[in-house]
Amino acid sequence: MEAETLNPPRGMRDITGDEAKLYYTLFSLFSETASENGFEPIITPTVEYYRLFEAKSGEEIRKSMYVFEDKAGRLLALRPEVTASVIRVYLKEMRARPKPIKLYYISQCFRYEEPQKARYREFWQGGLEIIGDETVNADVSAAYTASRFLDKLSLDHKYLVGNVAIYRAFMNMFKIPSEEQDHILHLVDKEMDDQLEKELLDRYGSTVREVVIKLMRGTLDSVISLVEEFKKELGDEYNKVMKETRRLEDFSKTLSDLGYKVEFSPRLVRGLAYYTGLIWEYKATRGLEQSIGGGGRYDGLTSVYSNVYEYSTGLALGLDRIALILMDLKDRLLVKRGLSGVIVVLSENIPLSVGYGLAKRLGSKFASLTVLATKNLDKALRVSSRTGVDLALIIGEREFKDGKVTVRDLNKKRQEEVPLKSIEDYIDTYATKPGST
Amino acid sequence: MEAETLNPPRGMRDITGDEAKLYYTLFSLFSETASENGFEPIITPTVEYYRLFEAKSGEEIRKSMYVFEDKAGRLLALRPEVTASVIRVYLKEMRARPKPIKLYYISQCFRYEEPQKARYREFWQGGLEIIGDETVNADVSAAYTASRFLDKLSLDHKYLVGNVAIYRAFMNMFKIPSEEQDHILHLVDKEMDDQLEKELLDRYGSTVREVVIKLMRGTLDSVISLVEEFKKELGDEYNKVMKETRRLEDFSKTLSDLGYKVEFSPRLVRGLAYYTGLIWEYKATRGLEQSIGGGGRYDGLTSVYSNVYEYSTGLALGLDRIALILMDLKDRLLVKRGLSGVIVVLSENIPLSVGYGLAKRLGSKFASLTVLATKNLDKALRVSSRTGVDLALIIGEREFKDGKVTVRDLNKKRQEEVPLKSIEDYIDTYATKPGST
Repeated sequence: MEAETLNPPRGMRDITGDEAKLYYTLFSLFSETASENGFEPIITPTVEYYRLFEAKSGEEIRKSMYVFEDKAGRLLALRPEVTASVIRVYLKEMRARPKPIKLYYISQCFRYEEPQKARYREFWQGGLEIIGDETVNADVSAAYTASRFLDKLSLDHKYLVGNVAIYRAFMNMFKIPSEEQDHILHLVDKEMDDQLEKELLDRYGSTVREVVIKLMRGTLDSVISLVEEFKKELGDEYNKVMKETRRLEDFSKTLSDLGYKVEFSPRLVRGLAYYTGLIWEYKATRGLEQSIGGGGRYDGLTSVYSNVYEYSTGLALGLDRIALILMDLKDRLLVKRGLSGVIVVLSENIPLSVGYGLAKRLGSKFASLTVLATKNLDKALRVSSRTGVDLALIIGEREFKDGKVTVRDLNKKRQEEVPLKSIEDYIDTYATKPGST
Repeated sequence: MEAETLNPPRGMRDITGDEAKLYYTLFSLFSETASENGFEPIITPTVEYYRLFEAKSGEEIRKSMYVFEDKAGRLLALRPEVTASVIRVYLKEMRARPKPIKLYYISQCFRYEEPQKARYREFWQGGLEIIGDETVNADVSAAYTASRFLDKLSLDHKYLVGNVAIYRAFMNMFKIPSEEQDHILHLVDKEMDDQLEKELLDRYGSTVREVVIKLMRGTLDSVISLVEEFKKELGDEYNKVMKETRRLEDFSKTLSDLGYKVEFSPRLVRGLAYYTGLIWEYKATRGLEQSIGGGGRYDGLTSVYSNVYEYSTGLALGLDRIALILMDLKDRLLVKRGLSGVIVVLSENIPLSVGYGLAKRLGSKFASLTVLATKNLDKALRVSSRTGVDLALIIGEREFKDGKVTVRDLNKKRQEEVPLKSIEDYIDTYATKPGST
């Protein structure tokens, strides 16, 4: 096999060393934070039937899926996102549970698109979903939990907040069909203003153009004024819009009261076609300002797969982006560091189980403790020192006979003989000494 | 979409509720145990080029892979196992690191075979690999670490130990070609004794038949006698076989000295074609006796992908089997249980941020703490009680005005008013009361 064939598939990657440790730290921290805030885990298949994503994932995602047939001719896809799976499982087995149902996942997803920096064909998402709660409290609960996770990482961030329901209400008022609405929102999202203005004018006339531009460039106050101005024309949609602007205000105010930065961002529409109302995005403000995730309301996504209508909201954080930012900031402190040790068994006449028996006794006192069997003590100590080991516990024939261990501090380059029977106490004292690690 | 289409793809499944919590507990416990024993994580792609697995995965696995083309016509496969990927990454970027290199992973793998109880088309493996250590210490290090993980789960287990190198040496002596050796070992593994005896007799004669049968049904002592008997004929292979029987003895004795049950199991061959020497399997002895994983030496697997020869050993545990056993034993204690709370905000006149502010202050004292905004206190308490919440922290208009919280113990059905400013102390005292959770 050629050297280049040692590469992972194009657009995918191997995660090793400190970066892999950081990923595992992110996984456990996300899991811990979600649990603390009342979310429980869900694990769905990496592969789903294609039809699950066909309906509502949005054109962009649908085009970039890995789709294939299994041997029985079933059309499968590597999941491009997890929300559709969560809704499927809710409908299948969770409908009788008390609401709201709060779920979290940590999953790889797949998109077949041109590889770019920090955009991989396989990427990791940490997600939160709340099903069965219409109130803004559900949106806040998910958003707050994600912020707590980012807080634990000391990753400063701000919120961009918008609401697609307001656009939809106005476009409904103008009787613009739903697929054309999707197209308009796509242009808003992609900031293709020239094309947008031209199309709006050509197809729907100057009033529609003016209103969409005002929604897109306005402040929250100017949007509310616009709603009041069209109160009569909005008819039934008026109450809905007012409710949605109130949700937007409540959401923003609550997070702002809790100390998070929140900006109204009327252009925010996001790629997934299933968002129905409030939406938000997380921007990291430490290091380069960049999007690290987002979420929103997707009320009624259940009705795509069944005759059930259920309220739902949720979000996903991009763990690859977050890892990249933390690695760039050289924020290695996230990789847990504790006392690291090596037990060196120096002779073939000493049973290996003596080394592992000691490891069993002392394991809980070390962040990492390995057993080495070698005759070459110098090399063992040199390699251990190079790989950041703090303490070597050496058992040679003499120590073995006398029931002792030679404990060598590889940082301070000094050593001491310790009776085997008091080794626990010795390590305890050592581990609590300030600056000892 | 029809009701049956709410199912996951055939042979795959959704993991929810206590079972999902158990899986996450297994993931974090495996990760923790591996780290404690000096292994560092590696994350490889879920999808690899097909050619990576083509060479050495063994016929059985190769036939049951999910293989598909991407849009550029590259032949990809969902990984059936992770060892090949780890070896690829070692060759690509880790060759200069100090040896031994100790890696762990927690990954889904995929096999397209007929679904059976506890055998899914997508399944979870926790794996350990050690590269660059020829000695039995490497085998022991991986095995011991897996046993520690099982110990933490209170999952009693025993070892079955064998060594394919002994079979290979004798078959080499009889000049049986390598592919025919694979076939013979396959029959040994599958206990197809009648077919095996017939084929051996027909194709190689009675001596070969007799030797293979003795290897397959012998004790370790009788195997050693057989080696001595054929010392002259074995020639160069003799020293190799003696070294391998010694490795088998050392491995078994060390684990046995550490308190684990070890049985010599000469029939043990295992499915993966890349094993070259010592192999072992884990059998759970609590509940139904069943295989929960295994491992072995795969020295020189590197040379399939490069001109590098490197020693390597490793193992994988089947986390689905382990989860199933623990669930069957109703061993729910693994699902961490701590103080669970709900903050109930009772009026729209109270900002939601009051509830979340309290959550932020108290979050670390609870295993789970959620915020509920409702006017229906009775229903909130009923639902909370049903879902196992211990404490409700109620903020109504009166409490809000007076700077207090009503703390209601949902288990003991009694409540108390607590000033907001001393709520931390109150919860601290509560959480440490014996029997309070």
